[in-house]
Amino acid sequence: MTNENKFHVQRYSAREVHERAAIEKVLDNQYVAHVGFIDPDTHSPFVIPMGFARDNNRILIHGSSGSRIMMSLAKGIEICVTVTQLNAIVVARSAFNSSMNYESVMIFGQARVLSDDEKSLALERITEKLIPGMWSYARPMTKKESAATLIVELSLDKLSAKARTGEPSDDEEDVSLPIWAGLLPLETKLGAPITATNAAGIEVPSHLL
Amino acid sequence: MTNENKFHVQRYSAREVHERAAIEKVLDNQYVAHVGFIDPDTHSPFVIPMGFARDNNRILIHGSSGSRIMMSLAKGIEICVTVTQLNAIVVARSAFNSSMNYESVMIFGQARVLSDDEKSLALERITEKLIPGMWSYARPMTKKESAATLIVELSLDKLSAKARTGEPSDDEEDVSLPIWAGLLPLETKLGAPITATNAAGIEVPSHLL
Repeated sequence: MTNENKFHVQRYSAREVHERAAIEKVLDNQYVAHVGFIDPDTHSPFVIPMGFARDNNRILIHGSSGSRIMMSLAKGIEICVTVTQLNAIVVARSAFNSSMNYESVMIFGQARVLSDDEKSLALERITEKLIPGMWSYARPMTKKESAATLIVELSLDKLSAKARTGEPSDDEEDVSLPIWAGLLPLETKLGAPITATNAAGIEVPSHLL
Repeated sequence: MTNENKFHVQRYSAREVHERAAIEKVLDNQYVAHVGFIDPDTHSPFVIPMGFARDNNRILIHGSSGSRIMMSLAKGIEICVTVTQLNAIVVARSAFNSSMNYESVMIFGQARVLSDDEKSLALERITEKLIPGMWSYARPMTKKESAATLIVELSLDKLSAKARTGEPSDDEEDVSLPIWAGLLPLETKLGAPITATNAAGIEVPSHLL
C-alpha cells in the first residue's frame, strides 16, 4: 500500500480544496487513529490505536489524565497520527498487480493540551463524532469527569495523504487472458443497536436508529 | 481506547493459548497493519499503513524493492506493527463511560529480509490472505516480479494485545436513569465483486463469490 499514487498537502490552499475535502472525509469516517511516537524511556517506536475526532483544522485525542500515553502526548513529544480507510480489494489478473484501494492521512506535529475552558467544546465534539446525538441525550458530563479527562489537539497544518483508487492496473499482455479482474468492495456499517442487559425495556433513541 | 482491559503476552506458552488464538484471529481478519518506525534521517516517528499476512508465528510485509520504507525495514530497524479491529461503539448512559469495543495487537522487533528461496511460499501466503483462491487461479508470478518484490518477516515472539469487550460500564447511580445503553456493532464485509471494464464478459470465479 506504500508504493501507490500519492498526494501531498503541506499547507491549506485553494488548489488543494478538493484534496482537503477528501482528507476531511477520511478523518470524519474513521473512528480510530494510529498514533506513533518514540517512547521517551526506551527510545523505541510505539503505535497505539486511539479514538479521535476532527474539529475544523485539528484533531482531538482524549484519554485518562492518569494514562502514561496521554501524559507523554501532553508533554508535546513529536507524533505521527495515521488514519486509514480501506475501500476495496483490487483483484488483477496477476498476484503481482493485485492491490488495495485505500485512502490514508498522516498528520505530523506536537500535540497541545487543552485548558479546562477549552475542554467542554472538545468533549462535545469527541462525543458527537462517536455517537451523533449523544451530547444532548446522555446524562451530562460532571466536573469530576471532565477533570479526569486529558484532551490534546493536533493541528492539521502538516499532513500527507495517499490513496489508491480505481480499477486494477494489469500488464497490457495480461488483459487478453481469460482471467477475471475487478474490485471486491469493503463495506463497513453500523449494525442494529443491541440493548444492554440493564437497559432492557428502554426504547432505542431515534438518533441511534 | 488505551485505558481498557489489557492482556500481555511476552512468550508463547500453554497458559496463553486462548489469548494466542484471539490474537491470531485479529491478525487473520485484518488486511492493514500500521507500521511504526523512527525515520533514520530525521529521527521522527512515522506510521505507515501496509498490507500484511500472518504465516504461523510471523507476519509478512511486502513492497517494491525500490521503496524507501521497504529498504528501511530490510535494514532491520526497530519497528512496532499495530493491527486493530474495531468491533462496536459502546453507548453508555454518559459520554464519559461511552467507549469502543476493539481488539488490538502490537508486535515489536526487527524485520528480516527473506531470501529468494523463501520468497515463493511467502508470496503465496500474502496473496491467499488478500484473495483466497487467487494463487492457483491467477496468471503465475514471473521471476522478474518476484525479484522486484522485497518481503520481510517479523516474528510474533514479542507482542502485546489489548481488548475492550462486552457491555457498557455505567456508574451504579446512572443505571436507573431512563437512558438507553448498549452496543452499536460495527460490521465490515466484502460486497459483491465489481468486474473491471476490460474484463467484461468474464465470469466471476467461484472463489470470489
